[in-house]
Amino acid sequence: MIKFSIFYPNEEGKKFDMDYYVNSHIPMVMEKLGGAVKGGTIDQGLAGSEPGSPPIYVAMGHILFDSVEEFQNAMGPHMEAIMADIPYYTDIVPTVQISEVKM
Amino acid sequence: MIKFSIFYPNEEGKKFDMDYYVNSHIPMVMEKLGGAVKGGTIDQGLAGSEPGSPPIYVAMGHILFDSVEEFQNAMGPHMEAIMADIPYYTDIVPTVQISEVKM
Repeated sequence: MIKFSIFYPNEEGKKFDMDYYVNSHIPMVMEKLGGAVKGGTIDQGLAGSEPGSPPIYVAMGHILFDSVEEFQNAMGPHMEAIMADIPYYTDIVPTVQISEVKM
Repeated sequence: MIKFSIFYPNEEGKKFDMDYYVNSHIPMVMEKLGGAVKGGTIDQGLAGSEPGSPPIYVAMGHILFDSVEEFQNAMGPHMEAIMADIPYYTDIVPTVQISEVKM
């Protein structure tokens, strides 16, 4: 199992519309990726290592796929449409990574 | 539901012993945290946004709890022992954050 993670850094003066992300962006992404998606989570950053300290990321999305190939085949044709939707909920430039789920 | 995430940045010249992390460190942490843990995953970084590019994090751990209070009550008494185990598998200084699981 592999995990595609997208990280939205918590940057001063930037906006992130969690309602749009959860209720509009992610459903659109899920519809486009279809059955290739094996699960996923959305996290809203609350705090860093100290209580009350800012989180590193205001939001993170994690989507599970059976393999890197499944992910690439599912995402490739829709990447442009998915990225074009990002400005509707944030002006943060996200970073991404692909991981192997070990546990 | 809240998620405690620990991120190990992918830094040149640093080591990370995934076998020790998965088979020794995490089982020890799970034993100490007991029933407060509601789930979790361990991810091993494979790639960044481009195929073959390095991942941001060589490893990530995500542990689920019912609330921030449950997490703090479970982790507090064991934080010192858990942190003392880190040098056995890595010389990377991890970063952490607490998130609310939205989906």
